[in-house]
Amino acid sequence: MTEPAPPDQPTDLSPLTLNRLSVYLRCLRRLEGEGKVTISSADLARRFHLSATLIRKDLAQFGELGIRGVGYDIVKLRARLETILGVDREHRAVIVGAGNLGSALARFPGFNRGAFRIAALVDNDPAKAGQVIGAFTVRPSAELADVVHEHHIELGILAVPPEAAQDNYDALADTGILAVLNFAPAHIVERTGVPIKTVDFLIFLEELAYLLRGNES
Amino acid sequence: MTEPAPPDQPTDLSPLTLNRLSVYLRCLRRLEGEGKVTISSADLARRFHLSATLIRKDLAQFGELGIRGVGYDIVKLRARLETILGVDREHRAVIVGAGNLGSALARFPGFNRGAFRIAALVDNDPAKAGQVIGAFTVRPSAELADVVHEHHIELGILAVPPEAAQDNYDALADTGILAVLNFAPAHIVERTGVPIKTVDFLIFLEELAYLLRGNES
Repeated sequence: MTEPAPPDQPTDLSPLTLNRLSVYLRCLRRLEGEGKVTISSADLARRFHLSATLIRKDLAQFGELGIRGVGYDIVKLRARLETILGVDREHRAVIVGAGNLGSALARFPGFNRGAFRIAALVDNDPAKAGQVIGAFTVRPSAELADVVHEHHIELGILAVPPEAAQDNYDALADTGILAVLNFAPAHIVERTGVPIKTVDFLIFLEELAYLLRGNES
Repeated sequence: MTEPAPPDQPTDLSPLTLNRLSVYLRCLRRLEGEGKVTISSADLARRFHLSATLIRKDLAQFGELGIRGVGYDIVKLRARLETILGVDREHRAVIVGAGNLGSALARFPGFNRGAFRIAALVDNDPAKAGQVIGAFTVRPSAELADVVHEHHIELGILAVPPEAAQDNYDALADTGILAVLNFAPAHIVERTGVPIKTVDFLIFLEELAYLLRGNES
């Protein structure tokens, strides 16, 4: 824990920087899929409506990743960003809550992709245990610790009502899980070593609202 | 449509800038709720783990919003950001698809907040029409245009399987809807004047994975 980070890998990236690196990674994967080999920060910015200055600044902190006049090597930069973001190996997740949202996430074709694997689905409703949802048989919440250890799970995904969010976060933290993605609109008191990220759908709606400013109804 | 934007309101904000403004708005609302009156960019940055330089740069483009040595007036800046983001008036939305995800969104306590109001829920399955989900009676997709006009709906929320996403986007666009939020992991061909934003949950998982880099299992 106290080991210093390698000099080219700052450990204090802000959530906004991480979000940008994640966007760059997505763009590079698209370009790689199209068979492109190199791209300049200016072209990357133009193609995906990003800021060239910010791209150069964000990537400069990881050392010399681009070659002046040529641009970035797409495959190398993609691999480098995967390492920086920690998505160069598989992470397993458990979904807590087999209601509408948990069931949708368990079945979601876009969720079980890339470095992430949904490994199990638990619910505290005895009537739900044993039900098959997508590729999963719902396990009772009482077995959460066993589920986490059996499947080497690192991430918890909270899909429970807001009033149950804290208790379920605590139960996940008790199993030794490493981080939690929370879909409940609730404030959760975080434990040291078990960071939580709450998804707020309003942010997406706000981005759309911006596009409607000219259309007063 | 061709009317020039007011000089202090650029129309070409990038998605990343919008995302940051949305984050600032959220922070300011929290501070306002705590009864704070002013805050400096440095304090705002420290409190919410943001970049003070970026805050100043982002806000400077809208004119003089801060007072040197005092900081930003929280109420004024919050109201200004709401206008810039277009969330100073109500926007109504229809959810298309009453499956697990659509039902979860319809019932989601965090979704029907602030400037957004879910007004209706439609599904193309005749067996679902007439069912009550949360506060909504599901309407048949065939009535989508009527639903949009009856409820003065501006936004569509796509919660359909990926293979049905394009058809349902087109159906929404045909009604004259102004923008679409898409939860299906599908590439959709966009029509001029009907922007679409696709929510990619992987971005959230990637942010968590970053926090696990030190914990090789």
